[in-house]
Amino acid sequence: MNSPSANQNNYPYRNEPTWSKSEKVIARRAFDAALGRELHEVTQKAKQMANEIQQSSDLWDLEHYLTQRRKEIDRKYDHRYSQLDLVFGRLRRERWIDEEDLRGLGEDKLRAIRSYAKFFAGTDPA
Amino acid sequence: MNSPSANQNNYPYRNEPTWSKSEKVIARRAFDAALGRELHEVTQKAKQMANEIQQSSDLWDLEHYLTQRRKEIDRKYDHRYSQLDLVFGRLRRERWIDEEDLRGLGEDKLRAIRSYAKFFAGTDPA
Repeated sequence: MNSPSANQNNYPYRNEPTWSKSEKVIARRAFDAALGRELHEVTQKAKQMANEIQQSSDLWDLEHYLTQRRKEIDRKYDHRYSQLDLVFGRLRRERWIDEEDLRGLGEDKLRAIRSYAKFFAGTDPA
Repeated sequence: MNSPSANQNNYPYRNEPTWSKSEKVIARRAFDAALGRELHEVTQKAKQMANEIQQSSDLWDLEHYLTQRRKEIDRKYDHRYSQLDLVFGRLRRERWIDEEDLRGLGEDKLRAIRSYAKFFAGTDPA
């Protein structure tokens, strides 16, 4: 028997919901749709900022904006099934996905997602 | 008498050329002109890249381009008088300034600047 410290395989996480094959398809589609919408927004904003550059500070503001958004998106879009209800909760809260995108997921996932969406609503800056 | 280690004022550097008041004015004008031209080029390129964004990799290419150029410009534009002939040598080599921009500088500075320009020509990638 392995001691706890020697046990390198932590899967499956305790209490982690199981995603059925069809749920995985829905999740992937919703995830990609949200990412696509967010990247589209960043692209539109970057084009607008570039278009309006008047002085060098505007140039470095554009760089800073892109760096911040890239880091935020990298952190946010975590497709591990252990994280996905939290990720979708945040994406619901930020309106990158709607209920329609999630249709077909089991009630257990939808409940968790709504609960996280509510949590993120509470963390919004006033 | 101060010991060497207690001597915090290292000015003037040995062999550092002295810049006259009128030379400082010319140097500042040439320096600012070069920086303005280079920033103008970065701005035009950024606008073009933003305009041509088709996919997310283009977005992050723009970010990467801006980061690289900002770092390069920060490093290059060193207005300390101890560095200025080297800086102008590089700017001559990269054609951000021409001989006309430097007119009025003493022959000692012009010689040093031309010598650095030649040095940088030798370090150009083949």
